[in-house]
Amino acid sequence: MYNRILIANRGEIALRVIRACRELGIESVAVYSQADADSAHVRFADEAYCIGPARSADSYLRIDRIISAAELGNVDAIHPGYGFLAENAHFNEVCRSCEIDFIGPRPEAMEMLGDKNTARSLAIKANVPVVPGSDGLIEDEAEATRVAHEIGFPVLIKATAGGGGKGMRVAPDAASLGTALKQAHTEAKAAFGNGAVYLEKYVERPRHIEVQVLADHHGNVIHLHERDCSVQRRHQKLIEEAPSPSLSDAKRKAICEAAVRMVKAADYTNAGTVEFIVDKDENFYFIEVNARIQVEHPVTEMITGIDLIKQQILVASGQPLPMTQDQVPCNGAAIECRINAENPDRNFQPNPGKINSLFLPGGLGVRVDSHVYAGYMVPPYYDSMIGKLIVHRPTREEAIITMRRALRELQVEGIATTAGFHDRVLQHAEFQAGRCDTTFVEREFTNLQ
Amino acid sequence: MYNRILIANRGEIALRVIRACRELGIESVAVYSQADADSAHVRFADEAYCIGPARSADSYLRIDRIISAAELGNVDAIHPGYGFLAENAHFNEVCRSCEIDFIGPRPEAMEMLGDKNTARSLAIKANVPVVPGSDGLIEDEAEATRVAHEIGFPVLIKATAGGGGKGMRVAPDAASLGTALKQAHTEAKAAFGNGAVYLEKYVERPRHIEVQVLADHHGNVIHLHERDCSVQRRHQKLIEEAPSPSLSDAKRKAICEAAVRMVKAADYTNAGTVEFIVDKDENFYFIEVNARIQVEHPVTEMITGIDLIKQQILVASGQPLPMTQDQVPCNGAAIECRINAENPDRNFQPNPGKINSLFLPGGLGVRVDSHVYAGYMVPPYYDSMIGKLIVHRPTREEAIITMRRALRELQVEGIATTAGFHDRVLQHAEFQAGRCDTTFVEREFTNLQ
Repeated sequence: MYNRILIANRGEIALRVIRACRELGIESVAVYSQADADSAHVRFADEAYCIGPARSADSYLRIDRIISAAELGNVDAIHPGYGFLAENAHFNEVCRSCEIDFIGPRPEAMEMLGDKNTARSLAIKANVPVVPGSDGLIEDEAEATRVAHEIGFPVLIKATAGGGGKGMRVAPDAASLGTALKQAHTEAKAAFGNGAVYLEKYVERPRHIEVQVLADHHGNVIHLHERDCSVQRRHQKLIEEAPSPSLSDAKRKAICEAAVRMVKAADYTNAGTVEFIVDKDENFYFIEVNARIQVEHPVTEMITGIDLIKQQILVASGQPLPMTQDQVPCNGAAIECRINAENPDRNFQPNPGKINSLFLPGGLGVRVDSHVYAGYMVPPYYDSMIGKLIVHRPTREEAIITMRRALRELQVEGIATTAGFHDRVLQHAEFQAGRCDTTFVEREFTNLQ
Repeated sequence: MYNRILIANRGEIALRVIRACRELGIESVAVYSQADADSAHVRFADEAYCIGPARSADSYLRIDRIISAAELGNVDAIHPGYGFLAENAHFNEVCRSCEIDFIGPRPEAMEMLGDKNTARSLAIKANVPVVPGSDGLIEDEAEATRVAHEIGFPVLIKATAGGGGKGMRVAPDAASLGTALKQAHTEAKAAFGNGAVYLEKYVERPRHIEVQVLADHHGNVIHLHERDCSVQRRHQKLIEEAPSPSLSDAKRKAICEAAVRMVKAADYTNAGTVEFIVDKDENFYFIEVNARIQVEHPVTEMITGIDLIKQQILVASGQPLPMTQDQVPCNGAAIECRINAENPDRNFQPNPGKINSLFLPGGLGVRVDSHVYAGYMVPPYYDSMIGKLIVHRPTREEAIITMRRALRELQVEGIATTAGFHDRVLQHAEFQAGRCDTTFVEREFTNLQ
């Protein structure tokens, strides 16, 4: 087993990994930017290295500095968290060449799945349904027009290197196709250095369902059931839950089995998420594999009782999974609300600043994952999430009630947060009925756009 | 159902009841002393009334003022929490005469069980084993000597009105009996206004096992399994867990069934706890019934998923229990550590004062029940508990690991707490083996006496 692990991340996920390390008896080494010197992840790590100025490009994305800290800290492995370098295959390779274990999939699997077009081909081979679309990349507008007429409008143009909605455009009809194509290409080129795009049938009102998987280095692959992350705003997830409230048992089984097939086909190891969209008729289509731990992993931990970060670490160190598929429980219902330092009344404008006073919710069924405290200064340089509220109750109905109670109990003075907005979503009949699709927030909260 | 409930208590249990009210859609009315104006229970209630100066006798024990607040607040019911007036049958009767529901047992059952000697007779009638001892109260030293020789030394002298170790003495031999008898009588008279005592065989190295029960007004009685509260210091519980790590399945079943018999015999309603001691040979003996919710109720909530405070409210309002005995789950292992503002290095001297900064533990498996926050002033007038850490994991071994991580994460600046002491207990081989009895802390941490 490892003696020391470096966490190449910040905020709540860095603290989350430190917690897992501590429970495994592993020492943790934090890295931090100058803006994060007072963060809890620095305070709770056994050792911490400053790796540069506030800007991510000067600190959390600096592979050289992170590797230096890893060598100074004499660590056996690096946990990348999510975001930053978590899905950077080059960083993954650098770790390997420095003989430091990267806690995640091998770089080859990461690279293959990071290319959406390759991933799509792999899915087809593994008999995992994909959205009808172009067989590979689109070379020019003429080809796009041909394919679009074949599969029927509306169509979705997606960057092969894309993520988080960047390099993605909908073309409702032939007239808009050329412009949408150009926009997607230009945006992808700027964001990822790769402008290549492909075409898909645009699924209207899709639900976002994803399956958590764990795969060890001994050929064992299991799923930990699905999550429903349909409550999104501009492709950013806001509320996630497990299990999905809208899936029949048969479909749940089918989608989870498809995810396991996909992971096996990719020779994937460690924790990963296979993302699908599900249409009105419960047809599901593979979108992509997220080759990392995800923000919303706690809801899966709550219904299964399995510590996903510990499993990531154990798998990376070469241990076989300690449970088989039929030893994965599915108890009750869990919901997560991402609490962002944003002002919902001002178009979700980020609202960094000092937290003057703080009361975090507690009590039965409430889990808080957060690095903030009274007196903490939320820096303006990073994503605006200041914590996650997670609830777990025997039924979804009770989970909603407990989450509403917890949201009301959360008191953050000094900065605006999204807590009140979450409460409005939770009260909405469509959410309560478990019928949200990814257009729900834009449709029902139009004043927020 | 009720529209409004007054909580005749303070601190974490008042907040706990407010949480349950909120989730049930019931408005809550708080009462508070002048010293508690800034407490979270005041902030989170829908309405709050100051009922007097800091001293409990001038506020939280003032039945007249609490009833006035209840009438001003137009409440349907009063939840007494634990301590203060929670087991005061007179208060219970006053509520009845004011047509306000008391959320707890009827005054008759409370009175009967509050008298230990009557409770003991009832246990014998219900075929619940009791410790061999005097048949009723001891009139004088001569009778005490006779009974003590009958049952064999060492013997325990207990006040019939006693609680929390007051009015209790051990006489190891005949020579010490007279003095012990006088001390117990005098102490009981001073503390409870009732000096009557009785005699019991002193069970050496007993474990403290208690059974949580719920009884409605329709004749349904269920148990919610047992708790092990053997880690005590001077008869004060420090760490509680569920289920007990030291009981065979057969004995667990027998003790839980005995508790249900006892509750039925007493015609008891609402939540209650039947306390037992268990000797080295797994013989169990009834001690008393606690006719209220207990500090340690969360560990039972964690393994069963059942919200005990909600059930108290629903039962009091006349609803039948929504579950039968075989619908009470028992999942995983839960441990609670009481965090007190005390200095373990100074003989657990209370250490009230201002909390300058605070970091509460979080993450997977951790529940925090606390009313404190950064900037809160812990008043010197009440018991010193500032919160409870509760963990719930699939196994006891994992629960201990998570509790140790949570204790280390808890950071309270400005006052001393018992967190570090708990960590020492959790590391002890006897605790880890699940073999603690009530003498454990005194035996193993002698420097703390």
